[in-house]
Amino acid sequence: METPPIRSVDAAPAADGMKPRPRVVVVGTGHAGLEAVKALRKAPMDVLLIDRNNYHKFQPLLYQVGTSGLPPGDITQPARHIFQGQENFDFLLGKVVGVDFDKKQVLLNTGRPVWYDYLILAAGASTNYFGVEGAKRYSFPLKNVPDAINLRSHVIGRFEAANRHPGLIEKGVLTFAIVGGGATGVETAGALVELFDRVFERDFPGLDVHRARVVLIEMGNALMAGYKPDLRAYTEKVLKKRGVEVRLNSAVERVTPKAVYLKGGEVIETHTLIWAAGVRANPLADELHVEQTSGYRVVVDEHLRLPDYPEVFVAGDMSGAMDPEGERYPQVAQVAIQQGIHAAETIVRTERGLPPEPFRYRDLGMMATIGRNAAIVQFPSGRGLKGFIAWLAWAVLHVVKLTGFRNRLGVLLNWTYSYFTYDRGPRLILTTFPETDEITGERQRD
Amino acid sequence: METPPIRSVDAAPAADGMKPRPRVVVVGTGHAGLEAVKALRKAPMDVLLIDRNNYHKFQPLLYQVGTSGLPPGDITQPARHIFQGQENFDFLLGKVVGVDFDKKQVLLNTGRPVWYDYLILAAGASTNYFGVEGAKRYSFPLKNVPDAINLRSHVIGRFEAANRHPGLIEKGVLTFAIVGGGATGVETAGALVELFDRVFERDFPGLDVHRARVVLIEMGNALMAGYKPDLRAYTEKVLKKRGVEVRLNSAVERVTPKAVYLKGGEVIETHTLIWAAGVRANPLADELHVEQTSGYRVVVDEHLRLPDYPEVFVAGDMSGAMDPEGERYPQVAQVAIQQGIHAAETIVRTERGLPPEPFRYRDLGMMATIGRNAAIVQFPSGRGLKGFIAWLAWAVLHVVKLTGFRNRLGVLLNWTYSYFTYDRGPRLILTTFPETDEITGERQRD
Repeated sequence: METPPIRSVDAAPAADGMKPRPRVVVVGTGHAGLEAVKALRKAPMDVLLIDRNNYHKFQPLLYQVGTSGLPPGDITQPARHIFQGQENFDFLLGKVVGVDFDKKQVLLNTGRPVWYDYLILAAGASTNYFGVEGAKRYSFPLKNVPDAINLRSHVIGRFEAANRHPGLIEKGVLTFAIVGGGATGVETAGALVELFDRVFERDFPGLDVHRARVVLIEMGNALMAGYKPDLRAYTEKVLKKRGVEVRLNSAVERVTPKAVYLKGGEVIETHTLIWAAGVRANPLADELHVEQTSGYRVVVDEHLRLPDYPEVFVAGDMSGAMDPEGERYPQVAQVAIQQGIHAAETIVRTERGLPPEPFRYRDLGMMATIGRNAAIVQFPSGRGLKGFIAWLAWAVLHVVKLTGFRNRLGVLLNWTYSYFTYDRGPRLILTTFPETDEITGERQRD
Repeated sequence: METPPIRSVDAAPAADGMKPRPRVVVVGTGHAGLEAVKALRKAPMDVLLIDRNNYHKFQPLLYQVGTSGLPPGDITQPARHIFQGQENFDFLLGKVVGVDFDKKQVLLNTGRPVWYDYLILAAGASTNYFGVEGAKRYSFPLKNVPDAINLRSHVIGRFEAANRHPGLIEKGVLTFAIVGGGATGVETAGALVELFDRVFERDFPGLDVHRARVVLIEMGNALMAGYKPDLRAYTEKVLKKRGVEVRLNSAVERVTPKAVYLKGGEVIETHTLIWAAGVRANPLADELHVEQTSGYRVVVDEHLRLPDYPEVFVAGDMSGAMDPEGERYPQVAQVAIQQGIHAAETIVRTERGLPPEPFRYRDLGMMATIGRNAAIVQFPSGRGLKGFIAWLAWAVLHVVKLTGFRNRLGVLLNWTYSYFTYDRGPRLILTTFPETDEITGERQRD
């Protein structure tokens, strides 16, 4: 049976015999995809956004869901809600499994292709386990909403197990290892010690929660690569003061359900390894059969286009775009946002018969939080800021940048409440997620 | 290996050679269990609450999670949070699989028993499919938080499928059948038509959402059994006016992934049957090997105790307690609350050497909402109230009765926001839950 083409784009123009409006397909509801769709809102084109999730997630705060700081709904927004009222917008729920560049078709897991005139691939990044033995199976990634809910459930479950069997504490039931000393690792480590010291201490009065350990493992010789040395040193100092054990120059060799083996011989007994060590381009990049570069990113020209297919753009974490000095851009939200906008604007220019302009990244600086009252900010000028003021700036900026008034209000209320009460809200174990055996720490998944 | 007994209760008294404090084990974090624990807060006893979930859920608003009205976190509260500061309280995460009444031990799925001096069984109710063919496998229950998240995801998924394949609409992709014309069925039907007409109409501008059908199937000759005739008629009138198809005197014979077969021959093509037709006592009741009565409830004496084991109480939906006229109490929150308190107070009396008093239910009336601005209230006097004032009373009472300040604030804000914007927040599809095949509507579970 011939499946009919997508309604919104297909039916009308063909029937009326008019030239159909060009169709832009955007793959991915991340920062790049969202900004691209927004930038096309007044363009005389049809925009179709495709994602396997029906929502956008605000990645920078995902770790707060994983550490019981925020409920998932506060950092997510349905795609259709974001673009309510954008007349040229439609959404398709599905997993993209490949692209037929010659036929100009996006291939979906349901087997039914979607055609495009222009394509923006912005499917983001996945966790990179670098082939470490046991890492994919036994560690906890923190890239998607279910990851975060799963981690949250697991962490609470470990405290319940320790409360019932205190003998398990010396076997690592309350040891939480994190690999990767970048923003995600640092923020998660800081949030965990706070959760334990401030909240679980009251939740588990019969348990000596100070026996819980948070171990942050970093391969390099300092945390927060890319920041200035004094900010990196400050981060380490604050984390240590708050009880995080920081292991620099340490790499993970092997992961089992009950332990992490470091190169050099150290063994950390733990039921919980959070994998924040690296990302790679979404595996969709491997299915395109085009040239890839470091981290499996897709090679593009200075306009973010595939060299052989100028109607196809790759933006955000999936894109291997280089700056004029030949360096790949960092895989951060700001780059994704600016690339998404640039791809959309280039499409509009092309339709108007104008030549494309090269993508230029405008560095707006970067920031990360270490926990309550402590954060680091690095301005594009190279100047740094740390401590309470940096933390306040971090909090305000993240509330402002969230998508949607309701989410902003929700996060603001949750944070304000937590700040003054030292309490946190959403510490639910949702048991339909993979469960962990109480005694062995073995995950029931697979 | 001998597993040591629970820490908090065991260790100290035995070591000091003093008489240990009596231990009350409460099974279930529902209304009955919660009130029992609260009522024991000043008692010189150790209280251990056991549940397979670490949270209490506010069952009366669960349908709002299923219909994208509220996020799960707004109607749930971690048990440990509720009882922070109650010194004689501890919690155990686990599934109770039976009780050894002679040894006074609660048996858990992990194989390790917990002993008690007094036991309050309050594990609530489960969905009753009455043996209808296909019902358990292909219909959506609405008893637990994952049920509600699952239903929410499925409903949104059906609209995404219809948006992509409008031809599926005549095959029932947008037909939502609900069986059971009690409070859950009525409230869910009312909430669904509102979700479709107010929210999905804007989310899916390319889709004629008015082709979506909500069919409410009830075996009896009127909705809302137990209410006065005029309130029952009002409920039906309002639902019909809002577009719900009400089928009275109709019973479900068979359920398949794509249709509901009614007795009498009618077939309703649908991918979605919500099962709100009945409950039965938690299957734990069957594992007790004691006398059961209608709905598998456990037979108890007028003090809510097992006839042969006066230290064991059964409270709430699991309890087969009778009023002085010999009628079983209805399985509603008010009965559970009062029985939980009564069981706790009887334990305190017993410890003081006082005789138990019989349980007497104080009827506080009942209420249900039909949707925006419409609800019914029936006072104990027999008087009724309907319409906007009843709806306002319903909303205020439900906010007040929620557990925890933060939840009350959250629900209040969500409702206020939705009331004025006609918008709803948490319309996320969480794809780790069982997925539905887009074309066939077949659920991927099993």
